[in-house]
Order: sequence, then structure tokens, then C-alpha cells
Amino acid sequence: MNTPAAYCQRAVQLGASVRHGLAHHTSVVRSSARAFRTSAVHFGQRAIVYSNHGDASSVLSSLTFSDLPPPPPKTLNIRFLLSPINPADINVIEGVYPAKHLPSNDLSSDEHPVFVAGNEGLAEVVAVGEGISELSERDWVVMTKPQIGTWASGRNVEVGDVLKVPSSELSEVQAATITVNPPTAYNMLHDFVQLQAGDWVIQNGANSAVGQAVIQIAASKGLQTINFIRNREDVESLKSHLGALGATQVVTYDELSDNAFKSKFKTWTQGRNVRLGLNCVSGKVTTLMACLLGEDAHLVSYGAMSKSPMSLPTSLFIFKNLSCHGFWQTRWYAQKTLEERVKMMNILADLIRDGKLRSPEHEILVIGGRESDSDTKTKICSAISRLAGGKYGRKVLLKIEETP
Amino acid sequence: MNTPAAYCQRAVQLGASVRHGLAHHTSVVRSSARAFRTSAVHFGQRAIVYSNHGDASSVLSSLTFSDLPPPPPKTLNIRFLLSPINPADINVIEGVYPAKHLPSNDLSSDEHPVFVAGNEGLAEVVAVGEGISELSERDWVVMTKPQIGTWASGRNVEVGDVLKVPSSELSEVQAATITVNPPTAYNMLHDFVQLQAGDWVIQNGANSAVGQAVIQIAASKGLQTINFIRNREDVESLKSHLGALGATQVVTYDELSDNAFKSKFKTWTQGRNVRLGLNCVSGKVTTLMACLLGEDAHLVSYGAMSKSPMSLPTSLFIFKNLSCHGFWQTRWYAQKTLEERVKMMNILADLIRDGKLRSPEHEILVIGGRESDSDTKTKICSAISRLAGGKYGRKVLLKIEETP
Repeated sequence: MNTPAAYCQRAVQLGASVRHGLAHHTSVVRSSARAFRTSAVHFGQRAIVYSNHGDASSVLSSLTFSDLPPPPPKTLNIRFLLSPINPADINVIEGVYPAKHLPSNDLSSDEHPVFVAGNEGLAEVVAVGEGISELSERDWVVMTKPQIGTWASGRNVEVGDVLKVPSSELSEVQAATITVNPPTAYNMLHDFVQLQAGDWVIQNGANSAVGQAVIQIAASKGLQTINFIRNREDVESLKSHLGALGATQVVTYDELSDNAFKSKFKTWTQGRNVRLGLNCVSGKVTTLMACLLGEDAHLVSYGAMSKSPMSLPTSLFIFKNLSCHGFWQTRWYAQKTLEERVKMMNILADLIRDGKLRSPEHEILVIGGRESDSDTKTKICSAISRLAGGKYGRKVLLKIEETP
Repeated sequence: MNTPAAYCQRAVQLGASVRHGLAHHTSVVRSSARAFRTSAVHFGQRAIVYSNHGDASSVLSSLTFSDLPPPPPKTLNIRFLLSPINPADINVIEGVYPAKHLPSNDLSSDEHPVFVAGNEGLAEVVAVGEGISELSERDWVVMTKPQIGTWASGRNVEVGDVLKVPSSELSEVQAATITVNPPTAYNMLHDFVQLQAGDWVIQNGANSAVGQAVIQIAASKGLQTINFIRNREDVESLKSHLGALGATQVVTYDELSDNAFKSKFKTWTQGRNVRLGLNCVSGKVTTLMACLLGEDAHLVSYGAMSKSPMSLPTSLFIFKNLSCHGFWQTRWYAQKTLEERVKMMNILADLIRDGKLRSPEHEILVIGGRESDSDTKTKICSAISRLAGGKYGRKVLLKIEETP
């Protein structure tokens, strides 16, 4: 009885202890909280939820429940159009990520929290609460508050937690993937070093979604990139793909480890001081990459796919004045004003509209309104396990339809 | 025939190929360059020199030569009063340090460079070249240009390479040790984080000369310090010594490695975010120390005594916003104006005069004017080998007297 569904049923039995957080709509919300079901009978909405951290296949459930009540003031009801499954989402569910979901007000009880999974998503506004002038029905919005819980057909959200997207300029896929990877790439390229056209940037994990955005944004600014990737069977086709995005050079970690690489590197960079390195791997690969950086360089980490620590000679810090930093888009959103978020969105939307920043390769996983919760769970957990195993090269976007 | 003395004798034979760099005093300088000797006959000056990098006992020589010619314009002749042997000096001689000595103009030939060892030193002005108003005979000066070569009885130096010391306020030992360790400590405490009284700083290698300066300068500002040191037989007496300097807590690496330490650390810091860590050890000790740092902290390295790399979990960078930097006083001097150097000197001199920054424990190694070059070399190499073996707790200051 430890599934979220069980918790929710218990919450219904507990009656008054159901937390809803929408005091002025108490009766409606209560009836909503009481009305959800977990199987055949559908009431309009679906969410992918969990109540305990752990392996996704053990803790995730699909939950169907009645439609959302009218939005309280300063809130919106939104319908999700596409919600990516990002690698960090899996870590959040496992409980090994510093960012956590808050319990869903309308699905949890005091004793039994229910968390809606997912962080990123594109949604359409379907109902606008009082006191909101900046958004209207049918507007597109993305989440700028982290871990709102986007793996759902619809939610009620605070107006300050979302940002309007220029829907006329972007496709659904472009808009649904605009809040995490592209700004991570953009900010890492701008926040640490002032780079000029012709300058070099080096990065590992270059075929990650962020890495591919780095290649394109760098190219759009006339920056040159050296991109390190894992060796693989079809490495030449990956090299071609990254080259087509704008990568100046693509190099495998095997090539990087070879002593001969240093002279190649010097020939390419022609003595130009390389001042920015981006890391999502750590371990030996990053030690080798850091040694290529010049005086006063910055090494910025946004991941550690090797699961090894970052191990660097101390002399790089003392004598070459290397600085190491981390970048986390979640922190960026927490620290920036609405104006700064809007500015970033517009910069990225312009790059996308101008064809300078392509959508990631992706597939859309549709969860039809008539699918059972059991089938839904199986579908999503299967996609997650393929992602976790590194089998997918493509981003998976959930399209969770409203239930009839 | 590869000793510096041999080079120098060859330089004499080469005559016109001797580099002197003092064109308007050519005849005097040449006669000076020609006149040096390596053994019994003394001509006024002595320098500890080398021509090839390597183990000090193999490459160092004592060299005696005639007195300095009158100083050319904008230069000074100085007499060294005390010249420290710092650990980095040994690395410079070995050739494993990024800073190098330039060949001595008056002792080298084009083909055979002669380097005077030593970086730090206190000297008295004995003759002032034309065009200098800011310094007079008998003024005390310290070197702010790195690797001038201070293990000598006297040198000719550019006026811009030295800084006047308030001789009335400082002892010889205080002044001779003011340009490397105290400013390293001061700058690391000020350049990376804005700290307020009551804030905590953590450091390893806390009994190093820099570490002891950190303790005292931090205490003078009301900062609290947690100081990590190696375990040793007389650890309690070292703890007492550092406590007397102003250390808030002194902890061995063994205690730091113990899981129980974390709760002790929390009790001490009472939830206060620790934002500055100073490292001269690297390796596991630094990994453990870095994990104690709070949000938005800076870890500044100025040494790596463990000879292990710095190995840190990438999550510290991404999720706790840790930044890692290096500090090198040599770079500081290269980047700062005369005014900034003077300001730093005055701040440190005030701390010393007010009893807030004590001289390091030290011994003075006198090289008498009548000692043979062979005995001199033996004495100095013996001191160096004890230092390199970590046997000395005290700083060794050379007092190389003029030869009769």
C-alpha cells in the first residue's frame, strides 16, 4: 500500500486532512482531491507521480484524476503540450539530486506526499485566475520555477513560476526544450570569460544536449570549438553531425589521450590562449582537457557523467591561474529577475528562429487519454530505463493527453 | 668544467662576449666581470650561483668577485642584510618552478649563463645611481621583482624592482620575510571573499609560514579559523603554538578523516556558511576539507605539499557553487602598481609593528667574509637538504657578508 495511488486513496479517506492550499475554492478542490482514481474510470487529468524516492520502475505511478477546478487568483490552469524526460529528472526521482519536488497540494495528504515528476515543459494556458493581465488563454508558457512537476496533462501554477513563450516563432519541440539545455550552454559561454570572435572554447561530452547547444551558440558568435566525445562504432557519423552543427574540431577521448594530440592542438589554436573549458564528464578526460587551457582560464562543470571526481594538478591553479566553477541553470533561475529571464528567452528564441540553434534530435512519447495507468507506467519506465542505460541518442518528450 | 665558476672563467677568457648590460659603464663593468674568482682571493662580493638546473648540491656554487662598480642611472647598489631560503627557491634551482632567474648580467657570458639564487631578501642601499630621488643610501629595500637573485652579499638592481621598507618600524628579520608569506596570507584572505568579523576560514598546512600568517591576520580581523595539520609526536605543543598565534581550532588530518568530526564542525560553526578554504596540501586532506565548505565558497590553493592532485566531487561545483582558484604572490607583484605594493607593505608593517603578525621562527646562517667558497657551498647545501627533508621547523635566513 505504498504506491502514490494508495496514499491518495488514504488521503480521501482522511477527508479534512487533504492539503489543497486553495482556501477560497475549498469545496471544489476537495471534491477534486476526493474524485481521483487510479484505473479504468477517467476524470480528465493524468500525472506521473511518486511518493518515495527510489528507482523509477519501483516508485513511479500513473495517476488519473478529475479536471482542475477554476484557477484561484494569480494562478493559471495549464495544459502540457510536451514535457521532456531529462537525465536529471531520473536523479530527482531517485532522490540523489539536490533539487526536490514539492508535494502536490491537491494530490497529497499531510501524511502522504504525492510528487508529480518532471521539471521542464511547454504548456498552453487554459484558464486565467483573477489579477493576471500578462497572460491569456492559449498563450504558451514554460516553467522557470524548477521542479514544478511537468509530467502531467495539466496543472495549476502560480503566474510567477512560468514565462510566456513567443508561440508564433517556435515549434512545440523548440519551446518545450528551451528552458534547461540552451540557457545552460548560453550562460556558460557568457558568464565566466569575455570571448571574442575567433577565440577557442573546449568541451567534453560534446554530444550531450548542452554540448550540441554550446557548439551552435559558439558558432553563431564566431567562436571556435574543440569538442571531445567518447569513441564509438559510428564515431565518424557523430563527428559529421557535430561538424554540421558548427563544431570546428571533434576529437575522441582516445585521441585526446595520445601524446601526439598536443602538437595538433597547438597547430589548431596557433598559440591563442584558450580560456574556457566546459565539463560534463570529470575524471581523467577532464584532467587532460584542463591541461590544454591557457593562462587565466575558467573550467566550468555542469555534469560528471564518468562518476569520477575532478582531479587536477594544483599547479594549474597556482601558476596558470586556472579557476574552476560549476554551473546550474536551476540556481540561475533562482537568482535572476523576471526581466533577466525574459531577456534570456528572447535571445534563445531569436537564435532558434534564425536557424542558429536546432531542436535536439527527439522522439515524442504519446500517452493517450484512454491508456490505462498500468500501461502508462510501463511505457514511461521503459523509456527511462533506456535513457538511463545510455541507449537513447534522442531526447524523449512526453505528450500526456487529457483523459476523456 | 660545467660549474658556474668554470663558466665564469670561460666568460673572462671570452672577453668581449661577456654580457654586462650597463653600456655607459662598460669599462668598469668589464673589469668587474673579468675580476671574479672562485677561491681564496677575495674581491669584495659573494653570490650563490648555478648555471644548470638540478639538485642544489650538484649545481650550486659559491662565487666571489670584485666589488660592484658605481650604479648606472636609475639603479642602486645594495648590500643584502638577510635573504631567506624559501622552499620555492629549491624548486627554482631544480628547474621545476615556473619562475626562473634571469642570467646575471655581470657574471654571465652569452654562452654560459650564471644565475644568482634566491628570491626574497632585505638589503640596504649603499650607492644610488643618477635620476633617483625616492631612495637614499642606508635605506632598507625589499625585492618586489621576483627572482632577482638575493643569495648574495650585494647586487646592482633597477630602482623599480625594489620597495622601500620602513626601517624604523621593523627588525631585519621582520623586513626580510615580509614580501612572500605575509602578503600571500593577506591577499588570500581578502581577494576572493568579503569576510566579516565572526566568519570562519578553514585551511590545511596551517603550520606553514603562510598558514601561521593566515592565523594571525585572520585573528586581527576577528575571523575565526579552523586549522588542519599533520599528526606528529609533539602535536599538542604545535596546537598550543598555533592557538597562541590566534587559531580558533587546530585539528589533525586524522581527526578530520574521522566521521565524528562533522558534528564537531557543525557545533563550532553553528550553521554559519564557511566560504573560504586555503590549501597548500591537495590530495585527500583537501577533498575532506572542501566538503566542509558551504554554499558559494572559494577554495584557494597556494601549494601542494602532498604532491597529489586536487580531487573534488564535481557536485561541489555544480550544486554548492564552489569556486577553486590558485594564488601566487609572484603574479600579484607582476600585476600590481607601485602604489598597490606600497599599500600592501604598509598594511603588513603596521600589523607587525602592532604585534599582530610575528616573525616566523627562524635561524640565521651567517656566511662570513673569510669563509672559503667550498665551505660556503657545504653550509648552504646542508641547510637546503635539511629543509627539503622537512626536518626544519624554522625558516633559514642567509646573511652573506662581504668578502674582505
